[in-house]
Parts: sequence; C-alpha cells; structure tokens
Amino acid sequence: MNTIGHLFRLTSFGESHGAAIGGIIDGCPAGLSIDTEAVQQELNRRRPGQSDLTTPRDEKDRVEFLSGLFEGTTTGTPIAFIVRNENQHSKDYSNIKDLFRPSHADFTYYAKYGIRDYRGGGRTSARETIARVVAGAVAKQLLAPLGITIQAFTSQVGPISLEKTYKDYDLSLTESNAVRCPDPTVAEQMSKLIREVKAAGDTIGGVITGVATGVPVGWGEPVFDKLHAQLGAAILSINACKGFEYGLGFDVNRRGSEVNDAFFADDHKVQTRSNHSGGIQGGISNGQDIYFRAAFKPVATILREQPTIDKDLNPVSVKAEGRHDPCVLPRAVPIVEAMTAIVLADAWLMAKAYSPVS
Amino acid sequence: MNTIGHLFRLTSFGESHGAAIGGIIDGCPAGLSIDTEAVQQELNRRRPGQSDLTTPRDEKDRVEFLSGLFEGTTTGTPIAFIVRNENQHSKDYSNIKDLFRPSHADFTYYAKYGIRDYRGGGRTSARETIARVVAGAVAKQLLAPLGITIQAFTSQVGPISLEKTYKDYDLSLTESNAVRCPDPTVAEQMSKLIREVKAAGDTIGGVITGVATGVPVGWGEPVFDKLHAQLGAAILSINACKGFEYGLGFDVNRRGSEVNDAFFADDHKVQTRSNHSGGIQGGISNGQDIYFRAAFKPVATILREQPTIDKDLNPVSVKAEGRHDPCVLPRAVPIVEAMTAIVLADAWLMAKAYSPVS
Amino acid sequence: MNTIGHLFRLTSFGESHGAAIGGIIDGCPAGLSIDTEAVQQELNRRRPGQSDLTTPRDEKDRVEFLSGLFEGTTTGTPIAFIVRNENQHSKDYSNIKDLFRPSHADFTYYAKYGIRDYRGGGRTSARETIARVVAGAVAKQLLAPLGITIQAFTSQVGPISLEKTYKDYDLSLTESNAVRCPDPTVAEQMSKLIREVKAAGDTIGGVITGVATGVPVGWGEPVFDKLHAQLGAAILSINACKGFEYGLGFDVNRRGSEVNDAFFADDHKVQTRSNHSGGIQGGISNGQDIYFRAAFKPVATILREQPTIDKDLNPVSVKAEGRHDPCVLPRAVPIVEAMTAIVLADAWLMAKAYSPVS
Amino acid sequence: MNTIGHLFRLTSFGESHGAAIGGIIDGCPAGLSIDTEAVQQELNRRRPGQSDLTTPRDEKDRVEFLSGLFEGTTTGTPIAFIVRNENQHSKDYSNIKDLFRPSHADFTYYAKYGIRDYRGGGRTSARETIARVVAGAVAKQLLAPLGITIQAFTSQVGPISLEKTYKDYDLSLTESNAVRCPDPTVAEQMSKLIREVKAAGDTIGGVITGVATGVPVGWGEPVFDKLHAQLGAAILSINACKGFEYGLGFDVNRRGSEVNDAFFADDHKVQTRSNHSGGIQGGISNGQDIYFRAAFKPVATILREQPTIDKDLNPVSVKAEGRHDPCVLPRAVPIVEAMTAIVLADAWLMAKAYSPVS
Repeated sequence: MNTIGHLFRLTSFGESHGAAIGGIIDGCPAGLSIDTEAVQQELNRRRPGQSDLTTPRDEKDRVEFLSGLFEGTTTGTPIAFIVRNENQHSKDYSNIKDLFRPSHADFTYYAKYGIRDYRGGGRTSARETIARVVAGAVAKQLLAPLGITIQAFTSQVGPISLEKTYKDYDLSLTESNAVRCPDPTVAEQMSKLIREVKAAGDTIGGVITGVATGVPVGWGEPVFDKLHAQLGAAILSINACKGFEYGLGFDVNRRGSEVNDAFFADDHKVQTRSNHSGGIQGGISNGQDIYFRAAFKPVATILREQPTIDKDLNPVSVKAEGRHDPCVLPRAVPIVEAMTAIVLADAWLMAKAYSPVS
Repeated sequence: MNTIGHLFRLTSFGESHGAAIGGIIDGCPAGLSIDTEAVQQELNRRRPGQSDLTTPRDEKDRVEFLSGLFEGTTTGTPIAFIVRNENQHSKDYSNIKDLFRPSHADFTYYAKYGIRDYRGGGRTSARETIARVVAGAVAKQLLAPLGITIQAFTSQVGPISLEKTYKDYDLSLTESNAVRCPDPTVAEQMSKLIREVKAAGDTIGGVITGVATGVPVGWGEPVFDKLHAQLGAAILSINACKGFEYGLGFDVNRRGSEVNDAFFADDHKVQTRSNHSGGIQGGISNGQDIYFRAAFKPVATILREQPTIDKDLNPVSVKAEGRHDPCVLPRAVPIVEAMTAIVLADAWLMAKAYSPVS
Repeated sequence: MNTIGHLFRLTSFGESHGAAIGGIIDGCPAGLSIDTEAVQQELNRRRPGQSDLTTPRDEKDRVEFLSGLFEGTTTGTPIAFIVRNENQHSKDYSNIKDLFRPSHADFTYYAKYGIRDYRGGGRTSARETIARVVAGAVAKQLLAPLGITIQAFTSQVGPISLEKTYKDYDLSLTESNAVRCPDPTVAEQMSKLIREVKAAGDTIGGVITGVATGVPVGWGEPVFDKLHAQLGAAILSINACKGFEYGLGFDVNRRGSEVNDAFFADDHKVQTRSNHSGGIQGGISNGQDIYFRAAFKPVATILREQPTIDKDLNPVSVKAEGRHDPCVLPRAVPIVEAMTAIVLADAWLMAKAYSPVS
Repeated sequence: MNTIGHLFRLTSFGESHGAAIGGIIDGCPAGLSIDTEAVQQELNRRRPGQSDLTTPRDEKDRVEFLSGLFEGTTTGTPIAFIVRNENQHSKDYSNIKDLFRPSHADFTYYAKYGIRDYRGGGRTSARETIARVVAGAVAKQLLAPLGITIQAFTSQVGPISLEKTYKDYDLSLTESNAVRCPDPTVAEQMSKLIREVKAAGDTIGGVITGVATGVPVGWGEPVFDKLHAQLGAAILSINACKGFEYGLGFDVNRRGSEVNDAFFADDHKVQTRSNHSGGIQGGISNGQDIYFRAAFKPVATILREQPTIDKDLNPVSVKAEGRHDPCVLPRAVPIVEAMTAIVLADAWLMAKAYSPVS
C-alpha cells in the first residue's frame, strides 16, 4: 500500500510518465512554519543531472503545495503536494513494452496487476521517491526544533568503502562532492569507479550510512513497532535497497562482554560508553546516536544486451537506451534521510500520545 | 504497538513473570482445520532446556486455545491463545530491580514508561516470542496447502559460518542437531564454540538464514509494503535482531551485468536463471525462492561483573545469575520461521483482496 | 475485524460457549493505577440475572487480568484479560444447529464463513460485549482524572419514553432501578411493560441516551474520524443497535436561526448558550456536554414459534427455549458507556499526539 | 484523520480557498476501465449553482486524474486526482477572520490547532466533499459489474417528508427535480419551502434516504467493523450529518414477533419476507436491500445577525454575506451515495480477502 506511518503519514502517488508525482502528508501538527525553499533544496539533491555521475535527464521537479498551509504555516490539515512530470521521453520505452527487463519489476507488476504502465518504469520508477523526499523535508523541519539532525552519506561503492565509523568524519563535507561521501579522497576514488562502470555500460552497488543525532530517549513502540523495525521497513522500501542493519548489525562475531554498552551518568544524563546498540535498546531510543547502514544493489538497467522473455514467453533480447544512473547511491542519500525523518516524526507523535499519565 | 499485519493479524501480550503470555490471531480465514499438536511442536522448538546449548529453564509452555475454533476448525472469528507462565523464579531478579543492565531495555523502558516490570525482563523477555511462534504455526498451516514451505537455520555462530548457499544443504537436517544448522559438521563446531562461550560466562552472536519456497507470483504491496520491507520489519522486531538482508543483501560489490537475473520460460512458467533478487522484484514475489539473512547480537545478559548505574544514576556493578542462553540463535530459528509465516499469510490475504477485476 | 481504536485499542475475542471471552487493551498509557474491583463492578452491571427483567442465566463473569499491570499499575504494555465461560448449557442450542433463526446472524455467518459455532450464538452472542465492558472500565479510569464522566441510561422502552432532556434528570438515580432509567416513575412503567412483553414470550425495543461531561475542547480528528463518526461507529457496533444520533439528531424540522448555538464567554471560557451541536462542532469536541441517543431493536430471540428455513433451504419452524432477555436495554446501558469511554480515551491520545508545535 | 477504508482507501485533502481539493484512492483493483466522464457527472451533481435552491456560486469543479490510470484503465497503483479551486472570493470572508460563527467549526478548529484558515471555512467547507464524490464515483464503477446500485434521495425537508418506503417510489425520478426527491409532488412542496426559508435568510434541515441493492451476502467484518457501523461512520462524517439509522432504526416501539424477518427460499436463494434488518444481520450483508436514513441539520450559515464572540472573547455580532445553501439536502444526495459506495467497495475487498479456505 502507499501509506507509511501511524500518525505522521505519507500517502504517495504517481508514475514516471503520468501527469505528476506527489503525496499527502497527513498528521503533521499545526503551527509549523514551513520553509518551502528548503523543501525544494532537498528535492534538488535527489534530482537527476546534478553531475556526470548521475543520469543527464534534466528534471526540474518543482514542488507545488496544494493544501494544509495557511500563510506558510501548517494548519493541522493534510498537506498535499505535486511535482509535475516534465521532460519525459515516452518514446524511449516503447521497445520494452512487451518484455520483462531482467531484475526489474516488469514481470511482477504484470503478473500481479495484469497491466503495467511500462513508460519509464511507471510506479516502480525512482521518480516515486520524489514524494518521499518532500515528506521527509517537512519531517526534518518538524524535528529540527527538537535538536534532531539526520544525515546520510555514501559509505561504500563497489569495493571502495570508508574504513572508519561515522564519528570520524566531518559529515558536513558530504555535500561537497557528487558521490556524497564525507571523505573527499575516498569520494574521488568512488567517482572514478562510477565513471568507469558507466563507460562500460554497467552499474555498481554500494552502501549508505544514516545517522540521527539528538533523538530523545523513549521513541519507538514495542513489540512490533520497535524503532529499528520501523526504520528498517522504511529504508528497505526504497528502490534497490537489499539490506538494513543498525548498531552492531551483521558484525556478529562478537562476545557480549565485548559489545555490551556500559551505562554511566554524565551531567545527570544517562549515557553509554560505547554504542553498539545503535541508539536503540529494546526497540526504544536511548538518547545515543542512531546509526544504520543500507545496502543498495547495482541498478538493474544496464546499457548492454541481455537475454530475457516477452509476455508470450518468447526469448528476446533487450538493451537499454536512454539516460540511466550507473550507481544509485549518490541520489539515494537524500531519500535515506527522508525516510529516516518520516519514521522519526511518526515516532515522536506516538511517544507524545503514549506519554505516561503520572 | 503490539499488533502486526494488515489482514492476518497477531496482537500479542504478556510479560515473563505475569500470569500468561498469549495473543489473538485475527483474520485467519474460516475453514482451516488446525492441528493443535503441530502448533505445540513449534512451541517446543522454541522452548528453553532443549539441550546444553540453551538455558536449562524448564518451561512447559503448553498452549491453550480459547476461541475461534469450532470442532477443530477456524470459524473466521479471532483465535485467542494463552500459555501460562510457570516455573518462574521471581527472586532471581530482585537484585536488578533498581539498576539498568548494559545493552538491555531496562533503561529505555523505565525512561519511556516511568515504570517497569523488572522480573525476568518483563515484556522484553524472550518469552514474548511465544505468541509469535503460536501465530506463526497457524500461519504455516494456512500456507501449507498452497505448497509453501518455510525453513530457517543457523548459518553463522561467531566466526563459524556455512560457506555455501541454502540450496547446497539438506535443510531437513536442520533439526538433527541442537544448534539447528543443516551441516552436521559445522553444527558440531558451532556447538563446541557455544559451550566454550558459556563456560566463559559470555555470549556470542550469529546469523540465521530463512527460506520460503513455493510462494506464488504477486505477493507484496508496493510501495511501502513491499514484501521484503514487511519481512524486514517482522524479522527486525525479534529480540536481539540487528540486521536483515535478502537476495544479494550487503554483497554489493557487484556489477549489474553480473547479478541481474535473466528471465526464461520453463514449461510455460516464468523463471529466472539466477536469483540475486531473492525471490522479490519491485517488492512483489516473483515465484522464485525467497531467502534472507538475519543478524543476531550476542545476548546482553552475561554471567560476568559489569559496571552500570542505578535509577538514581549512582555507579553500581551487576552480575547476572540464573539461567540464560549463551547464544540466542538455536531458539531463534523457529521464531524467524514464525515471523516469515505471519508476513506471508498476511501478504496472501492482501493479494487475494487486490486481485485484478478482469 | 476485532480491533477498535487508533491508539487506545481493544482487540476482543470469544464465543458464547468457547473457553473464554476476553481481549487485549493495547495503548493504555503507563502509570495508571487500575481499580480492578471497579472493573468487576462494571462487568456486574452487564451481567445477566440481575433482575426479573433480564435473563435468569447466572453468569459469574469474573475478570482475570493476565498482563500489562505491575503491582496494580499499567506499565504501557498490553493489558490482556479473560472471563471464563461457565454455566453454559450447550444442549439448549442443538435444535438450532442446522437452521437460521429469523433476524439472527445465523444465516449471514454461515454464508460468509461456511461454518458457524451455533452454540449460544457463538461470536454473535451478547457475551461478546464482556470485552467491551472491561476495556471501557479501564478507559473510564483513564479519563476520570481529566474530570470526564460518562453516563448512559434507558430513555425509551417501546412507547414509553422520557420526555425531558438528560439535564432535567438526576442521572445518579439510573442505577436505582433495574431498567436503568433515571426517572423512577417512568422506570416503573418500563419495567411493567417489559414484564408483560416477557410474559407474552416476546421482546421489545428502545433507546439509550449517553452523556459525556467534562470532555476538553479539541478532541476528534476530521475529516473521517470526526468524534461523532467514531462514536457512531462504536455504538452501532453493539449488538442490536440500529441507529445513532447526537445533538439535534433526527429532529431536523428546525431552522438554522433556531438551533444555532450562540457562543459567549464565561469566566474566560468559551461556552454556548444552547447545545444543539451535542458538544461537537466540525467533528471536534467544543467543551460542552456530548450527548447522543442509540436505538436498540427488540431482541430477535422470542419464545414463540416462527417459520424459517434450514441449511438445505427446507422450510422449518423454530421456537426458542431457554433463558433470554425480553429487552436488551437495561444491560446495554453499561455497554454504551463502555464504547463511549473507549472512543474518548482514543480521542484523547490522538489529541495529545497532534497537539500544535508552538 | 483524512483516510477512510481498510483496503479501498480514500485520503483526501484541500481547503475551500487553497489551491485545490483532491485525494488519493489507494487500493482500487487493477483492470477497471474508468469512465472519467461519469465521474465528472457525479461531481456535477454535487456542484453549487444547479438551481435556485442552492448557492449560486459557479464552481466549475473539473476533476483531473494525475496517476493510477494507464490508457484509461486502473493499474493497481494509487489514483490521485485534483479539482482546482476557482471563483473563490476570499474577500467575502475577511470579516469573520477573528470571530467564531455560531454552530460552525471556527472555534473548535482554532482551539485544537491554534490556527485556522478562515477563508470559506477552510477544511470544514463543503468543498471538502468533492474528494468524496470523486472516490465514490470510482467505487460505483467498481461495484456496478457486480450488479450493485446505490441511490440516495431527499426524503424529508423540514416538516415535509415522504410517507412511504423507498420501495414505493420510482427512484429514477430523483434526478428529475432540483431537490432530488423521487415524488415530484412532494419535491415541489420541498422546493417551495426551501425558497421560503431562503427568502427569510434562514436554513432548514432534513433527511436523506440511501439504498443499496444487489449487495451480495457476506460483506462486513464483525465485531467492530460491522457493515452498518462502517456505513454509519462514513455517513456521519459528512458535514452537517447528525444521525444515522438503518433498517428499523429509531422505530423501536416494536415487538420482536412483529419485526423479525422470516427466512424463506426462493429459487434456491435465501430471502427474507420483510426487511426490518435493513439488509444487514450481525453486521454482515444478507443479500436483501441495504437502506438507511441520514439526518442533516440546517446549515449554520444564515443571512441574519447573530451574537457571538471573537478570539479575545469579546461579544460581537456576525451576519453572513455571500452565497450559501439554504438547505444542504439536495447537494448532499450524491455525497451520501459516494460514501456508501466507498464503504461497499472496501467491504467487497475485505470479503474477498477473508473468503474461507475450503
């Protein structure tokens, strides 16, 4: 379904080559002054054509708010927004109309729905994430006054990965390079690799790390809506995401005595000396940094000949033309941030609702 | 919150040292003849005291169904069940009443709720998973007539891991050893390691692999309820789980040309030559095996002295006594299966509801 | 489905002749000291056999709490409870096993589910409301410290009805008579009528009025979860309820100039001179009393011969034996209060969550 | 909140004087060919300015679909639509900016949200119902192939009401007059009354009757989502609705022996001789006609001087100017149909999901 969240809820819509992409944010509290230009900036981070590492499609992607704001401030009513689809080359896709591209959702959509909008991937296009970024930008503005920051960055592209933890980098450098990696040297290596992959008509996978600081103690709703379970679902719902881990994650060849996070009190505040828990214990935030990693597969669309079948099950060959990302990572960074913000905004409202009575 | 699922829904309840653990399964279709003994068998797989690798607590854990069945068959009304708590040693926990055990949820529960049932972990106890296993066992019986099998196994304990993919093992051997690993030789190494860790009063982490075969094409509800996002949330909601990946997962140093799954037709059925997609494309099952890996951290409770603080923020020391698992993996295997079954049962009902009209 | 509420949620279960009736209250905030005896008292109000106006079945209906309380106080975890079914005469119902009683749900359950637990009405039995009353009693205790009172009373039985509005009666007299009408004289007339109807082997309908005082301004979530829409759904979900109106209700032969509620300020508080709005404007509570009326049909089970058909569509005759209520009203009063309390508790948590940010 | 439905879901947005009104229909099954002109026709029925009985505002209200359709057919993805707001006279409302109109939601919105879009009622404007009508029109098209018809009509205006049941009228005549009453003679009386009320600067209430025929047996999800409870909530959520009753409704001075609906078999189909149940038994449709009545209060906006207070609690006087409906009934008829269709579409998908397994 196309709604996420219990109380801070995004319902999204839109296909790549339909009239518009957009969504409705329901449940954003009243009284929040929205900086629409900042929302547009987030959208610009997601936009194609930012560098030679991404698709050269020039999508303007201007967001228009249709409701929920009065004189720039949220009124507690649903905030609808649209981004008109422009500069779409429908003819680029006519050749794939009747066949199933390998590792795309062409087949599953066709099998499930009996019909598919094949133009540009339709609903499965990465353009769907526009709605996420807009809602995430609003969520960020909701959370900012609480002292919460949300940052993501590319931590691995193919074999090249950052060797240190997020604490060892200046995350403000993330936006200083096209690949969105806070280490400029590593970023250069990543960029070089992506260019090579692109030149080979191929694609490459990688990892994005996300960090949320300043999250108060007590967010997350056990047992099924543990904060990391909600985060995991939100991140995994992003196109091309194949894995999610937080804190210790898959680094499980460890002893309890080694990774338990010792509590101590610092200035009347409970802290932990290490943070293998990733800021979440028992599904509830503990006040430490929340950090996680998300795996992204290589984009399925490659500029090479590939064997597949058509709707009638005949073997055919397909070769993508047009403009495609050789690596999804750089543009996925703001999307990861957006989904994190949406989950945290929702978690905040839930925690408010469920505050103890005495 | 304590409900999972859109249509096939489990609402669970219960604390470790309360009167009972249990739940309500709402939305199980009518007409299913329930093998209650098979449900009990699943519960027995989860039970402590099965081997020297798990806690010697002897919990009988007999499930009693209270509603929803008439002459052994589901009636479409909610199926409630309870497992009475017995053999609980409340006195074991009085020493931790006022302090926060490292990497436990003591602190977060106390901070969020202002009160906590400290006996045996209360709601955060692994006993909470009893409700999951019962509901999962019912879900398995619902799915079995569709030809769906769900199997999980321990694929890594500390540094010892299976080297081949799930297809290279005879999964029927999983239950042949206490560690629930389908390779008896590796299982023996794992068991040895767990015994060593236990002797050292320590704990160790690992990985469980889950596999679902026979899932029809078309399950999963994009864009936010993609099948793998729902699976991820369900698995991540299990105690001690720190990561979830499916298909390719974090193995992202790969090229699109290398990991794209080529379609071909076999006996009028669409198949893929490889399965890096993990049986899910665009969030919808494609008819291939669904497989995933789940990371579990070392159990936080260790039989060693650890520094921490109490409620008044004074530094104190804590050392667990009593009966605890040195490694959560063996007993988590049936829980992983249960959560998988619950998600798939729900996905089936959703797919039924949303079948095309023509 | 068997869950009601967004945040304060009751999931109920149980059939008349199954092992137990019960439910899970999820989302009750932590820190509430529960008076379990007061809960039992509410259940006693619902219990059959209280007077000669109700069925003489003697159902003990003792509630047992299974979770969610620690030393008598809510912990924020789900509160499960059960009431064991006792004193059920399963043999009373064997004669209706294969036929459809007129105006009962026998046919619809059978048609929908393909199976039905015919004993005592199964899930459609009024015993199902036990779970509502228990959850409502907890909700009442949650709301009481806010200064909210919830009272219902029988305002009409057959042709006999209270002529004045709720404000003109001393509602504390409601429990002084078996029919639960705050006017003792009218109550006596109602009682007399019910006895006559009972003697004739027949049943009679009526109306219950509900009143909630002290509800703060601002509860209710437009546009679909308007407070009265949620109240309406909750009340209409009670067995035998056929209508719901609030404020002006069906008394619509009125002019706007006549029924508009003029605002005025009293001691710095906004008040209205009249209350045709029924305490709700635009779906949001306005601080005035919330009042509504609920219509209940005559009980379908009558001690008379009625023509009907059996499962094979053969014409047959049915005559109820056993113990049945000639009028559902008296026992429905606590149920109406319970549903009101559940909706208001939920509305409170929603309003807390959605409080403006500045 | 602004979403209705479990599976067939409408999320709506929009204020009277914002950029647009619209919504997202999520969960409409794929494969439905949408007649967009028929959707527009439904919208035209709701539009102001249709006759001298309604406001002369000339709102074009052209619906634009933004997603979810491919070559005119639903694809299973969310269907977004907008209706641009035009011809809005913002200056009409500046005089009410700081005061609370009697029996309007001005006060409750201001108290709840701390801010309100006072222009034209903002979110509380009847323009909000545009989204309902569009979604209802889609739902009608989804239900039509099942043989379901949904019709509503004005059955009472002030003291003038239809005396017979819906079966005694030719409902195709409903659209033959501006008041939407199937009896032309009564319609003329109603029209005359509305004109008188309008001339007096006043408003008047009334009742709409709704009828759904052809609904299959088995729709509705006990115990809390009984079909009539869902219908009641949906209808009560319409602006100005004060009451809902179905079948027997508030006509409760009746004996069980008198109103029980006897089953009989007709051509191998189960039928009832009477239909006091209103087509729903135990919350599940029984195959008979579903009918209900909905009470609508007189519109709060009257063209007369009324006393009230402003935000600072000072007594002030307010007199509406501009264009307003003297009676909401005629234009509410298509809205009642729309909400009925939305609920039934949802009920159908739920029933599909929960069909028995054997």
